[in-house]
Amino acid sequence: MAGDYRILHEADLRDYLASVADLKTLLGGSPAAWEITEVGDGNLNLVFIVKGTTAGVAVKQALPYVRLVGESWPLPLSRAHYEYLALARQAQLAPGLVPALLHHNETLALTVMELLEPHIIMRKGMVAATQYPRFVDDITTFMAKTLFFTSDLALPAAEKKESIAAFAGNHALCKITEDLIFTDPYRIAEQNRWTAPYLDGLAAELRDDMDLHVAVSRLKLKFLASPEALLHGDLHTGSIMVTGGQTRVIDPEFAFYGPMGFDVGAVLANLLMAYFASAGHERKPGERQAFESWVLATVENVWNEFSRKFLDLWRAGAAGDAYPAALFTGEKGAARLEAERQAYMQRLFADTVGFAAAKTIRRIFGLAHNIDFELIEDPERRAVSEARAVRLARGMMVETAAFRTIADVTGGARKLRDWMPELSG
Amino acid sequence: MAGDYRILHEADLRDYLASVADLKTLLGGSPAAWEITEVGDGNLNLVFIVKGTTAGVAVKQALPYVRLVGESWPLPLSRAHYEYLALARQAQLAPGLVPALLHHNETLALTVMELLEPHIIMRKGMVAATQYPRFVDDITTFMAKTLFFTSDLALPAAEKKESIAAFAGNHALCKITEDLIFTDPYRIAEQNRWTAPYLDGLAAELRDDMDLHVAVSRLKLKFLASPEALLHGDLHTGSIMVTGGQTRVIDPEFAFYGPMGFDVGAVLANLLMAYFASAGHERKPGERQAFESWVLATVENVWNEFSRKFLDLWRAGAAGDAYPAALFTGEKGAARLEAERQAYMQRLFADTVGFAAAKTIRRIFGLAHNIDFELIEDPERRAVSEARAVRLARGMMVETAAFRTIADVTGGARKLRDWMPELSG
Repeated sequence: MAGDYRILHEADLRDYLASVADLKTLLGGSPAAWEITEVGDGNLNLVFIVKGTTAGVAVKQALPYVRLVGESWPLPLSRAHYEYLALARQAQLAPGLVPALLHHNETLALTVMELLEPHIIMRKGMVAATQYPRFVDDITTFMAKTLFFTSDLALPAAEKKESIAAFAGNHALCKITEDLIFTDPYRIAEQNRWTAPYLDGLAAELRDDMDLHVAVSRLKLKFLASPEALLHGDLHTGSIMVTGGQTRVIDPEFAFYGPMGFDVGAVLANLLMAYFASAGHERKPGERQAFESWVLATVENVWNEFSRKFLDLWRAGAAGDAYPAALFTGEKGAARLEAERQAYMQRLFADTVGFAAAKTIRRIFGLAHNIDFELIEDPERRAVSEARAVRLARGMMVETAAFRTIADVTGGARKLRDWMPELSG
Repeated sequence: MAGDYRILHEADLRDYLASVADLKTLLGGSPAAWEITEVGDGNLNLVFIVKGTTAGVAVKQALPYVRLVGESWPLPLSRAHYEYLALARQAQLAPGLVPALLHHNETLALTVMELLEPHIIMRKGMVAATQYPRFVDDITTFMAKTLFFTSDLALPAAEKKESIAAFAGNHALCKITEDLIFTDPYRIAEQNRWTAPYLDGLAAELRDDMDLHVAVSRLKLKFLASPEALLHGDLHTGSIMVTGGQTRVIDPEFAFYGPMGFDVGAVLANLLMAYFASAGHERKPGERQAFESWVLATVENVWNEFSRKFLDLWRAGAAGDAYPAALFTGEKGAARLEAERQAYMQRLFADTVGFAAAKTIRRIFGLAHNIDFELIEDPERRAVSEARAVRLARGMMVETAAFRTIADVTGGARKLRDWMPELSG
């Protein structure tokens, strides 16, 4: 089957799409007239936008290697299968918050989806200081529903175990996370990079910080062995497409059963990085203040709304095998279970804080950076923003218990807004 | 394939074994002369001892239902496959501590093993106050090796994920544990029983004890969603066959990837129950004192030796993806990693204490009891022994943190040796 895989360049793709009756009808007109543009700016795949006479579609094809690095770093095509599985499940659980699936070809590792237009990648919008009023409500609905309904709170154990097994084969993608997020930034690794020379000293400090190494290793262990729910697995602001009125979560090819805090932490980390980057994008003092206030309010609202919705789902009826209702009957049982729900969320919050920190540090010292920081042209200003983010992240990872509420996180960020780090070089 | 399954009664079994060349040769002589005896006294399967002219074998066949209950409780035959998989893996990891595998037929759900003779079920020996000098060393080697080498400390993540998936289908057996250990004893359930009327009040107390319900539900959640290592899954003294000089662990049909503390806790719980039952088997005061001292020393030694061996394996070279060596280099790194190893064992100890408590309570209020208590003929004396075990277990589950070391557990047991509970009825 793998033998029938071929990379579809523009002409092949046109023929292929024309051969699928539903897609041909949907696109409309003569295939020769379809506009096909390769737009993939991610690290792994080919992405085409195809515009026909009556509609457009997005086409994603996995390459047998990491696009960012090349053929020297092979990566299994099966990730397209897991992405498809995850998208289908997310569409069912959180309808309207992922692109509609139109077609999937497992052999070609190819998926055709609804074209999201005029949506842009949220990260780009945030670099431009754009606020997204729908974001909190949409992303918290997405996370609460996809995480709750695939957890032991909602699923019978047999179904959950089978679902874990269905995603177990996606381990090559998990391995990328294990290496690039939880390991490489803390050691000398060829693929690491940072804003040199300014952060040379900080990079060395992190490599020598054994409390941090223990903390990140505990998080890695949790990532390896805590299949709490079906994760998106890469839920940063580059995997979210937005307009003023819509939010769509894309690209779940890292999907697997893991710890919920990894997804929630990814969202918070990327908001916090946008906050710290904002000072670096400022052309005059204070010009992005409204945006920055919105970002910190969004950090708080994302956690609070996620937590509220997750708890509401749990209270509304938990059909899973965990916390069986039969053990919490009567008024006393109900009160005790409610207290335990709060304790459960407190544990999930601690995980979230830790994972958010790991997601931050990897973007500053690891292989894959993000445009929030990268588009700050002056490397010294960039380094200042990055160092502030790292200072908060280090505290979040090592002294997680000091962050009892989300206000402790935003308070910490606010205090570092104008903190001046000592830079190297 | 399931259509070709048939229950092998004596004559069929003789024909079947005669048709497998290796087994025919091994048993020796004329098949007609083989002695075949059904000896299964477990809850689930048929077990035959077959003695030929030159050797004997044990044959285990799964029934499509729970033997203890009958056809009204169906149970998948696939458990024989998982038992076979687990036995093969255990034989590889802890050679000489499980029966040698001679033959497996997946369709018939049948496994032929080395006949263990003159081994007896350890639980029976303990009722008779027999001490087993090899036990500590053997069971701790078994647990340290099977748990360590299937954990993230020893396995690359991809291999571990595939191994988790390979056992995911054994969920019907996991469900038995989930229901009978973590749920039913704490609610009104038809299958529950206890030493009535003496423990009626205690049973009601447990059903009303919401701190206990929260604690057991947290353990259940850990059982559902913490695939730390390949567990035996039912490691009580009825799954261990012994002589003075040998120990063999049998019956891993509940095998799956779960929390390590569940296996270690099972061993400790069953020793502690033997300790509390001992007073009930006494014909004159103090006659079993040496045995009782040995049991408590064994509880301490099992934890201490398990912990020492597990740590030695970890120190000797951990090839897994957790706690990567590259993050703990130099003297400082080595010291910090060693401190973290100790912290890891402390967390595992807390899990062990909690799971041991759950394994105790289920044997006194749930469906499946054990002969340690059941063979105490006078129900009032039995209830006294059981109530002492429950008192310790309740503390271990709800105030787990108060048990910092294994000496806290044995100290607690010793204090309750002559405690007189208030009984009902």
